[in-house]
Amino acid sequence: MNAPQRDNRLNFSGGPGVLPEPVLDQLQESIRAVPEVGLSVLGISHRSDWFAQVVRELEDNVRQLLGLGENYRVLFLQGGATQQFSMVPMTWLRGSPVAADYLHTGYWSGKSLPEARREGPVNLLWSGADEGFRRLPEDGELAYNPAAPYFHYVSNETVEGLQFRRVLGLEAVPRVCDMSSDFLSRPCEAERFALIYAHAQKNIGPAGVTVVVLREDFLGDRAGTLPPFLDYRAQIDAHSIYNTPPVFAIYAVLLVTRWLKDTVGGLAAMDALNRDKAGLFYGVLDDSDGFYRGHVRPEDRSLMNVAFTLGSPEQDRAFLAAAEAAGFSGLGGHRSLGGLRASLYNGLTREAVARLVQFMTDYRQRARA
Amino acid sequence: MNAPQRDNRLNFSGGPGVLPEPVLDQLQESIRAVPEVGLSVLGISHRSDWFAQVVRELEDNVRQLLGLGENYRVLFLQGGATQQFSMVPMTWLRGSPVAADYLHTGYWSGKSLPEARREGPVNLLWSGADEGFRRLPEDGELAYNPAAPYFHYVSNETVEGLQFRRVLGLEAVPRVCDMSSDFLSRPCEAERFALIYAHAQKNIGPAGVTVVVLREDFLGDRAGTLPPFLDYRAQIDAHSIYNTPPVFAIYAVLLVTRWLKDTVGGLAAMDALNRDKAGLFYGVLDDSDGFYRGHVRPEDRSLMNVAFTLGSPEQDRAFLAAAEAAGFSGLGGHRSLGGLRASLYNGLTREAVARLVQFMTDYRQRARA
Repeated sequence: MNAPQRDNRLNFSGGPGVLPEPVLDQLQESIRAVPEVGLSVLGISHRSDWFAQVVRELEDNVRQLLGLGENYRVLFLQGGATQQFSMVPMTWLRGSPVAADYLHTGYWSGKSLPEARREGPVNLLWSGADEGFRRLPEDGELAYNPAAPYFHYVSNETVEGLQFRRVLGLEAVPRVCDMSSDFLSRPCEAERFALIYAHAQKNIGPAGVTVVVLREDFLGDRAGTLPPFLDYRAQIDAHSIYNTPPVFAIYAVLLVTRWLKDTVGGLAAMDALNRDKAGLFYGVLDDSDGFYRGHVRPEDRSLMNVAFTLGSPEQDRAFLAAAEAAGFSGLGGHRSLGGLRASLYNGLTREAVARLVQFMTDYRQRARA
Repeated sequence: MNAPQRDNRLNFSGGPGVLPEPVLDQLQESIRAVPEVGLSVLGISHRSDWFAQVVRELEDNVRQLLGLGENYRVLFLQGGATQQFSMVPMTWLRGSPVAADYLHTGYWSGKSLPEARREGPVNLLWSGADEGFRRLPEDGELAYNPAAPYFHYVSNETVEGLQFRRVLGLEAVPRVCDMSSDFLSRPCEAERFALIYAHAQKNIGPAGVTVVVLREDFLGDRAGTLPPFLDYRAQIDAHSIYNTPPVFAIYAVLLVTRWLKDTVGGLAAMDALNRDKAGLFYGVLDDSDGFYRGHVRPEDRSLMNVAFTLGSPEQDRAFLAAAEAAGFSGLGGHRSLGGLRASLYNGLTREAVARLVQFMTDYRQRARA
């Protein structure tokens, strides 16, 4: 087919984020008709053989990319990470006399705390709030409780641009991790986690679906008292179609996982691409003599999100307007932090980063001329 | 743009159902770039000015199509009707000493009952289970409780093909109605309801978004104790973007409401089209000398879904195979009922119904030859 003229705007949005071009091509075709079905993807029954196969292949792709066995179940739910903020403590903390361990490393982990406290006792191991979320904790600052029902943290803080480069927690305590903004962007030692969740709209798909990877023995018999749409067991038993799932969003995630496996070549290769892009971008900050200032300390920099500023709201606004005019979209900071943010998700090309870096270099030179 | 060759298969699926062709064209374009934005709809931030305008226009379109004032709030949530089965009793039945009135008129209203009973007392006013859900109740069979906190029913039973042609309940008791499979297919006296909910994937969009129309005084101060994603007040205050909404699905519903307003000409016109299609389809049943047998009594026939059979599972399977081979998709009955089902949603054209009717007429003649 003849694609319409592609727009030249480049999308650095914090999320929903940019998706790979080959995936967009296939999605566009699927709106008219999924080739092997002959119907619009928007009108195919979730009870069809085709969709059952989509879910099975996607479950397998996720396990394969993460190097997990069949003892991990892969679910595709609705409600975003926000719903997981509640489903996790509803399932494992409600009625527990022992507190779960939580970290507060930025905006999104902060959102998980009240939802956990609504259900049971929470032990806040560490908070970066007083320091403005400019760094992550060192191991020596974390006094884990070996008897906690689980330990919850966020691997990548989307708003502040902080990312853990190691797996946290004790091997004896089930790890629950919100990987919404770096899921499938790098190898993550997934087998060391009891539960991983990630909404799709950063690295792996459009908004509207959340992937949950759950080690089945962690769930055990903790199910059956919640409404089925909030019950991991009911969703496992139904292969994510207890009720009508977001068919289009799930199909999009399947296409992204195929792209990750077949075109990119797996998570190590994706990580290399993402490191290259991030290196390019952080280089322009580090070489700017303080003209562009990153929000976080270098050791904790995220490969996915870079929060930065030119020093004042006025300067940031001027930069943002110039960048928009030059075709760079989505560079405004999150409303909670202000400033600027560039998101460098899987779907963003190195070429796009190179063009932004060139723009930023030129902008600095013009500003200092 | 040059659209790819359109497939000739016609989609009579019970849901997700077929969407109007002009909407599919616009959605296909939007995957590459929303014209007024220049970015893929899948990568546009839900916090963008553009998306805020999408939500505002869609709220207004729904109110306008239904003839409602600003005292009705329009929400776009996730989790399907299934989540509403729980959110309604969580909000208005939890802790109530007085039972809510419920009807059991088919498969889907049956699904609402255990979720209500989980939260509080339920008074089952009437059930069609013993009669196999072949009819709807008469007014004289319904002893409403004027003190009930609300009365819940399903306007159109998708599986059995039953549809109410009148508004049920007492004016003094808030009406809560699951209109998932006939929402925006006809005028519905919406101002007589306190709360209407409908997932999109029948008449108004793809799977992944649920529309809730809520009279604000019904909500009152009944909010604040549930997690925000289950709290109508939190969603109202955030204009449905408390957390990341399903941007694509909401945009698709906007396009359908534009089509309903501008191309179809409103709900009375849509109803006339739907009556015409249904008349055509029921005609072939009624003129078949019992070769095609409808599941329900004629007075309660749905304009949206027609459950029928040729008399035996073998005959139904043979018909289904022949229909599939002739390019008619989605005619299998729901797994709970078996048999056959044709769904005649808004997006299905009269031409498609006429082609199916011709096929069925020919099939019967061949079978009897």
